[in-house]
Amino acid sequence: MDVQADPYERDLGRKAANYVALTPLSFLARAAAVYPGRTAWIDGDRRASYAEFHDRCRRLASALAARGIGRGDTVTVLAPNVPEMLEAHYGVPMAGAVLNTVNTRLDGATVGFILDHAEARALIVEASLAALAREALAQARAKPLVIGIGDEGGAIGEIGYDDLLAAGDPEFAWAPPDDEWRAIALNYTSGTTGDPKGVVYHHRGAYLNAIGNLLAWGMRDHPVYLWTLPMFHCNGWCFPWSLSVVAGTHVCLRKVEAAAIFAAIAEHEVSHFCGAPIVLNMLANAPAEVRRSFDHTVEVATGGAAPPAAVIDAMAAMGFRVTHLYGLTETYGPSTFCARQEDWGALDGAGLAAMLARQGVRYPTMAGQTVVDRDAMTPTPADGATIGEVVLRGNTVMKGYLKNPRATSEAFRGGWFHSGDLAVTHPDGYIEIKDRAKDIVISGGESISTIEVESVLYRHPAVLEAAVVARPDETWGETPCAFVTLKDGAEGVSGRAIIDFCRANMAHFKAPRAVVFGPLPKTSTGKVQKTVLREHARSL
Amino acid sequence: MDVQADPYERDLGRKAANYVALTPLSFLARAAAVYPGRTAWIDGDRRASYAEFHDRCRRLASALAARGIGRGDTVTVLAPNVPEMLEAHYGVPMAGAVLNTVNTRLDGATVGFILDHAEARALIVEASLAALAREALAQARAKPLVIGIGDEGGAIGEIGYDDLLAAGDPEFAWAPPDDEWRAIALNYTSGTTGDPKGVVYHHRGAYLNAIGNLLAWGMRDHPVYLWTLPMFHCNGWCFPWSLSVVAGTHVCLRKVEAAAIFAAIAEHEVSHFCGAPIVLNMLANAPAEVRRSFDHTVEVATGGAAPPAAVIDAMAAMGFRVTHLYGLTETYGPSTFCARQEDWGALDGAGLAAMLARQGVRYPTMAGQTVVDRDAMTPTPADGATIGEVVLRGNTVMKGYLKNPRATSEAFRGGWFHSGDLAVTHPDGYIEIKDRAKDIVISGGESISTIEVESVLYRHPAVLEAAVVARPDETWGETPCAFVTLKDGAEGVSGRAIIDFCRANMAHFKAPRAVVFGPLPKTSTGKVQKTVLREHARSL
Repeated sequence: MDVQADPYERDLGRKAANYVALTPLSFLARAAAVYPGRTAWIDGDRRASYAEFHDRCRRLASALAARGIGRGDTVTVLAPNVPEMLEAHYGVPMAGAVLNTVNTRLDGATVGFILDHAEARALIVEASLAALAREALAQARAKPLVIGIGDEGGAIGEIGYDDLLAAGDPEFAWAPPDDEWRAIALNYTSGTTGDPKGVVYHHRGAYLNAIGNLLAWGMRDHPVYLWTLPMFHCNGWCFPWSLSVVAGTHVCLRKVEAAAIFAAIAEHEVSHFCGAPIVLNMLANAPAEVRRSFDHTVEVATGGAAPPAAVIDAMAAMGFRVTHLYGLTETYGPSTFCARQEDWGALDGAGLAAMLARQGVRYPTMAGQTVVDRDAMTPTPADGATIGEVVLRGNTVMKGYLKNPRATSEAFRGGWFHSGDLAVTHPDGYIEIKDRAKDIVISGGESISTIEVESVLYRHPAVLEAAVVARPDETWGETPCAFVTLKDGAEGVSGRAIIDFCRANMAHFKAPRAVVFGPLPKTSTGKVQKTVLREHARSL
Repeated sequence: MDVQADPYERDLGRKAANYVALTPLSFLARAAAVYPGRTAWIDGDRRASYAEFHDRCRRLASALAARGIGRGDTVTVLAPNVPEMLEAHYGVPMAGAVLNTVNTRLDGATVGFILDHAEARALIVEASLAALAREALAQARAKPLVIGIGDEGGAIGEIGYDDLLAAGDPEFAWAPPDDEWRAIALNYTSGTTGDPKGVVYHHRGAYLNAIGNLLAWGMRDHPVYLWTLPMFHCNGWCFPWSLSVVAGTHVCLRKVEAAAIFAAIAEHEVSHFCGAPIVLNMLANAPAEVRRSFDHTVEVATGGAAPPAAVIDAMAAMGFRVTHLYGLTETYGPSTFCARQEDWGALDGAGLAAMLARQGVRYPTMAGQTVVDRDAMTPTPADGATIGEVVLRGNTVMKGYLKNPRATSEAFRGGWFHSGDLAVTHPDGYIEIKDRAKDIVISGGESISTIEVESVLYRHPAVLEAAVVARPDETWGETPCAFVTLKDGAEGVSGRAIIDFCRANMAHFKAPRAVVFGPLPKTSTGKVQKTVLREHARSL
């Protein structure tokens, strides 16, 4: 329809009064205005109110802007979960620049690659990571301004972070982006093959996923949020921005250990935290002397792998309520969660765990999610059995991969983002991931979900951790091979016993043919490195 | 900066996978997919699940589309709070058309004016309003398709609503608008002078205000929401859309009476409702025989006037928790709310009421709100005393007035929406409305807030309702004149006693010089008609 023929378009265009770019930065300005005295963050003995937090972010923005850093420029940050990381989530985009937080467990060469690919104009480094930064800078062509956190003498970089802020303007009048499609963050995937890809987030998506978190989790005003999830991981799933909407308190934690987590919960009345399954495992298996009891419910969100029934039960007994999330770096972190249905209240431990093991349903802020046949791109039946690829569509799907139009087009083919995760849809519409596309085992022409085999292994009382990969086989093409870490004191259990347990609990052709005991190789974000295990299995 | 020079803009444009127009219609599709069996609405003995609700909305959309009604077309609805009103909030925009709900207490001539101005293509009329519709159609040039709710024989219009739906397609594949700036609703203001103005809402704003309601009110999944606020009033403050985000249950109520409200709370465990102050007054003063006790807290949001301390206290004693909202038709209903600060917990009845009497702070989804000097357009000091005009800015400010570019420009002058409400900003940043710009009394050069005088009158134990207007005075220019409705049994109280009470509780020059007893004239949305009272005062 012609715009002028539509009375609802005539003289009714966007104006300064009725159109403002969506940006999560606005949440902090509001929190500082409405709740200036509330505690924004706690880091050991340090704490800041929302007024102070906002002032420090504006100081950072003004100092960056004074050095000519703004639109189109990247500011890279290498830091653990310290308050300065939270400040970077606001101060960097307030200057118009793009925040690039980097996995602190990467090697110097990879960090150097990132500095070059991102064309970093500044590098903010926390003191404990000075050696990694030096190594990266030695290998990079980029010559960013180096700013050291906890570095007042200037031993790490040209200027200490606090000195930079001291010279900044706490009243800096930052402006929202001229377009909500402008980039706010850049996150490199840990890509198991080839160079890491730079995933670009925009202000619109960050605003919406920050709200999506609150809606999915039912978060009200003033939660106390503990940081065990690294903020460098998908911008901490957007929670650095979510918390400002509800004027919550961030509790920073440098080292993720059971004792420190229990202590923080008891001391600060932590109400929520997000953590990898390994963190839940750590709490569920924590020795009695580090456990602390608390009389409120702590909401825990986990993702990356389904929480096993034993862990959910052990967590529930201590007062934790587990929610299962699913997402990817390309979807700003969580895009899906396992929304609890009221009638699940009647389920027992195993029954509930089977429900919660599923990745569930889309966030209210994600427009579409479905499982499709990989060739035809048509939805698979909701039968809980037919495996297809999870595809997503909406405003919380990345802007694309930086300087990689080919990978962007490939990821967005057919009008959907292709997750590379294989899943089934259950009759109730909930999806359940069965495998990464590259991990699935094809044995005698049948697909075997390694996740399904792992879930059986986890039910064995002696198993602490398990991972299954394909092993080449002359007869079957591939067979499942299990790598298992046993619990302390369970060293006597044999591979044969493990295989028999699997055969007793699932179709025989799905049971592993070989079992290898020992610790599992993991990425810095706690993901098991199946590429390494596949190499190992091939060499057996 | 040149777009191609910015690496974050290169090859990173909007695509089908990562850009979807924001629309509140998406919330219903998701609720129907995730919670198909949950009850969406209850209307006496009728009820519908979310799956049925979504199907009925799609039937409505397909039936309208089949009649050529779509983009740029208006569908007007004249109905009380029946489920069909909820269906219209989804079905009409699913067809691409614009929903125009009309105040059912208007006269036929005004409704006729609206039908013509809106160029209504269809008119959906509930049976109890058939006479008003006939009167309006007789005076209008517009010849909309008339659809009768509760009219199977076709006595009201060309076709019964249920017959229309029976022929519709429950699988109708509606599409989001091609642009989130497209109109979704048209609401006529009740303008005390001149013709009503048509306020246009867009999909983006309706999406954001629907979410803003949830965030401001801390609404989690599955509330039970009672309809006392008319849905024709600013689209029920966007709650018809909010509820789908959290898969809540709408409880419809045709007649707003204390007995029916208490019965619905007891029977359906209502958790939330919005109501005009008159509704709260009705509950607070309800006779014992209609009251029903309940053992949960019912959240009540009210707006239009500050809830008096006595009403807040009486409501709290019964188990209601009152939140004060503020907004205008031009801001999709609520834009501001009186967020409770933690330290208010220590306040007593009057102290808390003084806090809650304030309109408060902006919704997280509103970009800006401030009080400005009416001439200079600069913010007034936060001193709780200096009066200025409330101005707002953001995505939940209307698209503009339909076919009225002059009024739109005037309302948006200086980059802000001008509310026409006069307020002060308190030192804590909370705003408090002192008067409509046209209501304030100027006496001896001093501004007297009629709302302030009314709040003192409300504290008199014999006063049920009060309204103050300016009365011309030879010496002072104007003086305050009070119109008062006394409580049952308080008829012996004199005007002199009322004036003395005011003089004892406020500056003498602010106390009314005249008191008139009797019922107050009100608009259909419960607002006191001060224009009528000013006429009356002038004739005294």
